Amino acid sequence: MIGYIAGTLTTIAFAPQLLKALKTKSTKDVSLLMLICSTSGMALWLVHGYLIHDNALVIANFISVSLAFSLLVYKMKNEY
Amino acid sequence: MIGYIAGTLTTIAFAPQLLKALKTKSTKDVSLLMLICSTSGMALWLVHGYLIHDNALVIANFISVSLAFSLLVYKMKNEY
Repeated sequence: MIGYIAGTLTTIAFAPQLLKALKTKSTKDVSLLMLICSTSGMALWLVHGYLIHDNALVIANFISVSLAFSLLVYKMKNEY
Repeated sequence: MIGYIAGTLTTIAFAPQLLKALKTKSTKDVSLLMLICSTSGMALWLVHGYLIHDNALVIANFISVSLAFSLLVYKMKNEY
């Protein structure tokens, strides 16, 4: 049970960050390296989940990598 | 192997974000709700790891919750 709550919280954590970025149109203080580490790490968790046939890992990381990648693209478009 | 790389990346992701915040002294664009979700989620992962006697989960989340909590405290001190 604690694991499910933990998983939900860490999976959706980037949602408020993405909404904030879209609202303020500012991502200056958000670290590019943090987004690169998060996106690539979550993508690898997804691959790992697929390889070990763990649907929970695949679904959770599909959501979180989508949020993190959107934020990364938005920051790149916004600043570079 | 992919799991270890994924774990390392997602565990240390907040390190560059914390360093950036300390350097620029600005955390305006970093979402408070994102930090609250991350910190509480990682803390619960740590508890979950302790309950199921999984050292990898405990160690990884001890590092990531320390980084996320430091960032949360720094943002609160900086802005409120």
